[in-house]
Amino acid sequence: MAEQEKEASFPAKENFSEWYNELLRTAEIMDVRYPVKGLYVWHPFGFSIRKNVYAIIRELLDKDHQETLFPLLIPEHEFMKEAEHIKGFEEEVYWVTHGGTNPLDVKLALRPTSETAIYPMYKLWVRSHADLPLKLYQIVNTFRYETKHTRPLIRLREITSFKEAHTVHATWDDAAAQVDEAIRIYIEFYRQLGIPVLPSKRPDWDKFPGADYTIAVDALMPDGKTLQVGTAHHLGDSFAKTFDITYEDPEGEQILAHQTCYGISERSIASMISIHGDDKGLVLPPQIAPIQVVIIPIIFKDGTEVLEACENVRSTLGSAGIRVKIDDGDNRPGAKYYKWEMKGVPIRIEIGPRDLKNNAAMVVRRDTGNKEQIPLDNIKNEILERFDNIHADLLAKAEDEVQSRIFDCETLDEVREKLPQGIARVHWCGVKECGLKLEEDIGAGILGIPTGQDENVTGKCPVCGADATTRVYVARTY
Amino acid sequence: MAEQEKEASFPAKENFSEWYNELLRTAEIMDVRYPVKGLYVWHPFGFSIRKNVYAIIRELLDKDHQETLFPLLIPEHEFMKEAEHIKGFEEEVYWVTHGGTNPLDVKLALRPTSETAIYPMYKLWVRSHADLPLKLYQIVNTFRYETKHTRPLIRLREITSFKEAHTVHATWDDAAAQVDEAIRIYIEFYRQLGIPVLPSKRPDWDKFPGADYTIAVDALMPDGKTLQVGTAHHLGDSFAKTFDITYEDPEGEQILAHQTCYGISERSIASMISIHGDDKGLVLPPQIAPIQVVIIPIIFKDGTEVLEACENVRSTLGSAGIRVKIDDGDNRPGAKYYKWEMKGVPIRIEIGPRDLKNNAAMVVRRDTGNKEQIPLDNIKNEILERFDNIHADLLAKAEDEVQSRIFDCETLDEVREKLPQGIARVHWCGVKECGLKLEEDIGAGILGIPTGQDENVTGKCPVCGADATTRVYVARTY
Repeated sequence: MAEQEKEASFPAKENFSEWYNELLRTAEIMDVRYPVKGLYVWHPFGFSIRKNVYAIIRELLDKDHQETLFPLLIPEHEFMKEAEHIKGFEEEVYWVTHGGTNPLDVKLALRPTSETAIYPMYKLWVRSHADLPLKLYQIVNTFRYETKHTRPLIRLREITSFKEAHTVHATWDDAAAQVDEAIRIYIEFYRQLGIPVLPSKRPDWDKFPGADYTIAVDALMPDGKTLQVGTAHHLGDSFAKTFDITYEDPEGEQILAHQTCYGISERSIASMISIHGDDKGLVLPPQIAPIQVVIIPIIFKDGTEVLEACENVRSTLGSAGIRVKIDDGDNRPGAKYYKWEMKGVPIRIEIGPRDLKNNAAMVVRRDTGNKEQIPLDNIKNEILERFDNIHADLLAKAEDEVQSRIFDCETLDEVREKLPQGIARVHWCGVKECGLKLEEDIGAGILGIPTGQDENVTGKCPVCGADATTRVYVARTY
Repeated sequence: MAEQEKEASFPAKENFSEWYNELLRTAEIMDVRYPVKGLYVWHPFGFSIRKNVYAIIRELLDKDHQETLFPLLIPEHEFMKEAEHIKGFEEEVYWVTHGGTNPLDVKLALRPTSETAIYPMYKLWVRSHADLPLKLYQIVNTFRYETKHTRPLIRLREITSFKEAHTVHATWDDAAAQVDEAIRIYIEFYRQLGIPVLPSKRPDWDKFPGADYTIAVDALMPDGKTLQVGTAHHLGDSFAKTFDITYEDPEGEQILAHQTCYGISERSIASMISIHGDDKGLVLPPQIAPIQVVIIPIIFKDGTEVLEACENVRSTLGSAGIRVKIDDGDNRPGAKYYKWEMKGVPIRIEIGPRDLKNNAAMVVRRDTGNKEQIPLDNIKNEILERFDNIHADLLAKAEDEVQSRIFDCETLDEVREKLPQGIARVHWCGVKECGLKLEEDIGAGILGIPTGQDENVTGKCPVCGADATTRVYVARTY
């Protein structure tokens, strides 16, 4: 297919769903043609994005967590111990029933999440108050038998990249502080991806099965729906009771431990590519981009000098640790621009004879399209400065977008009117029945109570008309 | 338990099996108490060893392979396509039969290895000779329903760390060259772990199900048994036939592709800790050690000066990229030595008042126990030099050990006599029946034909007495 046709066939981002699917394909992130519904294949390019994204979360966690690895298979008797937890997952669990041609004595669940794999070991590991806090995490594949419409990176039967942390603390308050800390870590993680997230405390009917409460972070997707991209759960002592996790306090008494768990998945990547991408394809923050700079030689007759200059720039940038590549292939420059724009390379450098006369190069930003001639002598610093600017601009743009799409609404009609564009913030009396009725009436979900909101709320619940105790985010959700 | 008792209770390496299990526990590598047979838990310390080991294989492969990720679950119809392959695995495959409470329409296999997950996609990805060679790899969990005795890191039901590469080539010869290249990569990988491996071409009855031939690398374990720690398979065009993987050659004809695959697992870690370890616990090559240097302050009354000197050394080494830690805990120095020796820290630095008077530190090598006073002014270079020496010495020692335990044998009686000590090298006529009879008679396996051996073999097959065409390694195997 000619390049021009290809360009023409790439859908506008306005048609978000179509754009998203085509982006995954054309930018070579995921292949959806694997012969099982809800399972997808990472292309090498997509996988290298994943590597860079997960390097960030690892770096953030490694400050005071340790990475570990627990088995995928959970025996039925452990899985079935926590009643609330089972209820939450029983429709979604894959069961291994046979080894070879023989039925297994004990059925094995593919972990949908690892509480019931990890906590039997925590029972053995936690002995004394000196062992606490215990903060471990793992990055693993988990499984959900999704019956809803599946979608790459967003709703999967194999979540290939679930980062789950599991912590143990002496007191309920320590665990609560850890939930707050988890949310701070996630906000920082998403900040590095250039994504503003909205933290909120989930309503009781939407918390993690078995938890005291759940705080989640949501990202606003281009179609106005929100995507839950991280959750942190205060487990209280309910799992500790079930799995008998106790510690000896300084006075020699056995005390039930308190726990938290928190997770993120490849939805982080879904939100990043969706929010930053544009009609030309991927737009990646420099820290994430597998290729950060592509150099395109503009050659007319003899290209020796131009190629030499390109190689010098490559070498200068490469020794500064920048991931840089020269595209000296046979395609015309336009085709090269198309290709590397699609792949989200943050900066393109063009060097032709005219640039060389000025001892300069043309530097083009992927996010803004902005072109500037830059002296070759200072190219490294100019590029590094642009990396910072690109990240800051992507984040600022995304923040503006979110802020412009949060609407304070007083009535259900207003909520209905605004929801197609984004998030409604409405008063709520705090009564479950009103919350559920609101969700039913408008056909959308209560995300939760924004964390850190002003304590003095004055307003009326749009359902019952009583005085509101809080405000909540309402949105259409993935 | 008092430290001294603990020390006394650690078994001698002579009792290899007991030593191995106790090492995994005491050095905090794996926990074997997970409630399913053959599944184990990585302790954070063990996992950090794994990280360093897999960073090496990634670096070696990333030169001309790309990392990717395919689904764990393989639909029955794909898994059952390749007849030889099924025969090899059907007794060992775990089957997922239920999603939630419903039986699945199509049973899903947990990958025992990923040929049947990957090659349906290769059919779609490989179009033209320009797409070749294609060299991808992934690091994933794979599953085998082992009915034999399981053992952590060695024989597992969940292999947590399977690195499998899958390549596609135009010709049979290109694929054969890739198999050789894979073996070169593995030899280099193990060299970096300080482990000499023996490559040999597996006899036909022991090759990978569906392959043209298999070359494997084995490590000699302390108990004289060999452990297969890497395999490379020439798949010919048999999987290409099954999965319809063809490419268009420059003349426009559709040609069947040729393929290879090659894998290593956490057995790499099993061999490394087994071969280098000693009666005091782990011994790790510096490149692998999560902590490379531990500094122990030797404090009598006022420790201010000593602690300051320790901190200076830590900072000097840390800025050189060395993973260094000060143990300024309350235990007596002897207990600290015991602990860090158990964890295989390659170098211990002791600093006390007497050392400080000489502006020096005592530097102790974990592998040899060798102690030297080293001037503080040159500590960084002295440590880096020792890292190189430790690695070289570990490798040389392991090489000597292997060489001293390979025995040329002419008769089956000789083989029987030598096998408890290591590997027998015997002549063979090359006839399958003789090979199988040899294996049966001596109750041990033919590893294979050493690669790169002298072509002129003169000797008699110890089974039939005919002229030998080759020599083979024979060993008791894990």
